[in-house]
Amino acid sequence: MKIKEIGGEFALIERLSGLVPGTHPEVVQGIGDDAAVVRIAPEPAPFLLVTTDILVEDQHFKRAWASPEQIGIKAAECNVSDIAAMGGTPQWMFISLVLPAGTEVEWIENLYRGICQSCRRHSIALLGGDTTQGAVVTINITLLGSVHPDNLCLRSHARPGDALLVTGPLGASAAALALLTSGHKPPGYLLEKHLTPNCRMDISHFIAPLANAMIDISDGLGAEVHHICAASRVGAEIVASSVPLHDEVRKAGALLGIDPLLWAISGGEDFELLFSISPERVPQLKASGVLCHEVGRVTDRPGAVVLIPSDGIPIPLAGGYDHFQ
Amino acid sequence: MKIKEIGGEFALIERLSGLVPGTHPEVVQGIGDDAAVVRIAPEPAPFLLVTTDILVEDQHFKRAWASPEQIGIKAAECNVSDIAAMGGTPQWMFISLVLPAGTEVEWIENLYRGICQSCRRHSIALLGGDTTQGAVVTINITLLGSVHPDNLCLRSHARPGDALLVTGPLGASAAALALLTSGHKPPGYLLEKHLTPNCRMDISHFIAPLANAMIDISDGLGAEVHHICAASRVGAEIVASSVPLHDEVRKAGALLGIDPLLWAISGGEDFELLFSISPERVPQLKASGVLCHEVGRVTDRPGAVVLIPSDGIPIPLAGGYDHFQ
Repeated sequence: MKIKEIGGEFALIERLSGLVPGTHPEVVQGIGDDAAVVRIAPEPAPFLLVTTDILVEDQHFKRAWASPEQIGIKAAECNVSDIAAMGGTPQWMFISLVLPAGTEVEWIENLYRGICQSCRRHSIALLGGDTTQGAVVTINITLLGSVHPDNLCLRSHARPGDALLVTGPLGASAAALALLTSGHKPPGYLLEKHLTPNCRMDISHFIAPLANAMIDISDGLGAEVHHICAASRVGAEIVASSVPLHDEVRKAGALLGIDPLLWAISGGEDFELLFSISPERVPQLKASGVLCHEVGRVTDRPGAVVLIPSDGIPIPLAGGYDHFQ
Repeated sequence: MKIKEIGGEFALIERLSGLVPGTHPEVVQGIGDDAAVVRIAPEPAPFLLVTTDILVEDQHFKRAWASPEQIGIKAAECNVSDIAAMGGTPQWMFISLVLPAGTEVEWIENLYRGICQSCRRHSIALLGGDTTQGAVVTINITLLGSVHPDNLCLRSHARPGDALLVTGPLGASAAALALLTSGHKPPGYLLEKHLTPNCRMDISHFIAPLANAMIDISDGLGAEVHHICAASRVGAEIVASSVPLHDEVRKAGALLGIDPLLWAISGGEDFELLFSISPERVPQLKASGVLCHEVGRVTDRPGAVVLIPSDGIPIPLAGGYDHFQ
C-alpha cells in the first residue's frame, strides 16, 4: 500500500504514532505538536522543547532559485518558528547535511553562513551535527529550546468560544512559488517571503502568556486550523473576508487567475502564527502593540471546521499542503 | 572547490566549525565529540547530551540487503552508541524521514518497528520527527540523553600514559560489506554485526566512571584514535597484534585476499567503544566483569599516531572511513 492510498502524510504520521511504545511521565507532549515538550526538572523550571525538520532539494528548495545563504536562513527559521509556536525560546541547534560528492565547498560555507545569520538573530548556539554524501542536498535541523510552563501553548489548548488570530498576511510564499513555477518574476515582497522568511519570534513572547492554543503556519491556514481542532476536539469557523492578504498576493492572483485565498488556506511556508485566545484577552494583546488579525473563532462542534465565504453559506475548510498528496 | 580537494569530510567539518559564532557558558562541549554536552541546571545535575546522525539509502544501507526492521535497528543503535561513548544514558528520540512517493506503508511501518525495538531495549521514548517526500530514503535520528558530570568521557580527556582499550573484536561489519559487495554470502556472525549491530550500552556505564577519553568506533579504529589524539593533543601507539579480530573476520580476509586488520582500522560501523584509562584502573575495570582488549597506549607526542606491526617498526596509523574521499 502506498502513502497516498492511506490518505497521505498526516495519515502516515498517525499510523506510525500508533507503533510507538508507551507513555513516559516526564513527557508533557510527544508526537503531535510543533515541538516535543519534556519536563527535565521539577516545575516551575522551564520545559525542554525539541523540534526537527528535514528539507530536501527540489522538494523544499531549488538551488536555481535560492542562494545557499537564503536556503540556510529558511532552514533555520522554519525550525525557530516551531519553537515560537510553543511559546518558547530557541537555544541549541544541530545540523545534518547530505551533500552530493561534487558540491562546492563555497556553497556549503554560504549555506552555513545563512544558518548562522539566523542563529545570531535568535541567540542560538550551533552545537553539532553530521555530514554525509548522497545524491540530493538534504538538510535536517534539530532545534532545542525552553519554555516556561505558564507560557506553553499546545495545539490541544483551544477552547470553544476562543477567537482565532493570525500574526500577519498569508499566502505570500505560495504566491511567489506559483509565479516562479509559471515563469514569472515575483515582486520583491513575495520573493523575500518565499526565500528568506522571518519567523515570528519577535512577537511570540507577547502572545504566549495570553493565548491558549498556538501553531505555526507552515502547511497553510487550513491544515493548521484542522490540527488545532483535532488536538483540542473542537470545531472552528474561519471568515474568508477576514483572512489577511497582502496587495501583492492579490495582484499575483489576478495575474495567474487564481483566488489568492487558496494560497492562504492551502499554500504553506508563511511561518506566521495561528493562535486561539479568550476574546476578553484580545484587547490586552492589542494594547501590548502586537499586530494581529482575527480570522474566526473556535466552536464546540468537534470535526466541524468551516470557511464562511462572503455569501455567508459555510463550506468545509480545505486542508493544507501534504507532501505525499 | 570540491570537498575532496580540501581533504574530505573531517576537513569540511573543521572549516564549517570556524564559521559558527562564539562560545556559550552553558555549553560544556559543542561541535567535535560524539554528542554535544549542555549544562541545563547547576551541577551535580546531569548534563544534557544531544547527538544526530543521518543515514542515506545506498550510502549507509541497501534495501536489497537489509530488511526495514534491520535498517531501523541500525539507525537507532548508531545514535545510542554516541550517547554510550559519552558515558551517558539515552532518553528521547526524534526521527526525520525522507521517503520516495511510492514507498510501501508496510516498509515504513517495519522500519519504525526496528527503531522501536531498539528504543525499548534502551528505554528510550520516541517523541517526534518529520516526514517528507524525496527521491532517496533518508533517515535522520536525533537522540537526547543525560550524563552525570563525573561520568562524562570526552575525546579530549586522554592523558599520556593512558592505556587504550576496545570493547570487542573489530572489522566484522566491514568484512560483511566486503563479502556482500564481492557477491559472497557472509556467515551469520558477520551479517548480524553489519545489519543489526548492538551498541555497547550494556557495559558503557561500567567503563565511564573509570575511563578518561571515550569514543565509539563508527569510522574504523584508525580514525577514532586520531580523533582522540587530536582532541587531547596527545599521540598514540597501537599494537597491531593486539587489535582483536574475530575468526570469521580472519576467514573472510583469507577468502578475499585482504589483511583483516585493514577492516578493523579503516572499515567502520563496529559500534564498539574505544577508551583511554589510567593503567592502574584497568584491574578494577576487569574485576567488574567487563571484557575489554588493550590495543595500545597514549603518548606525550601530539600528532604521532603510529601502528606497531609484528616486525616492531612503527608506521603511521591510517585514518578511517571518510564519506567524501
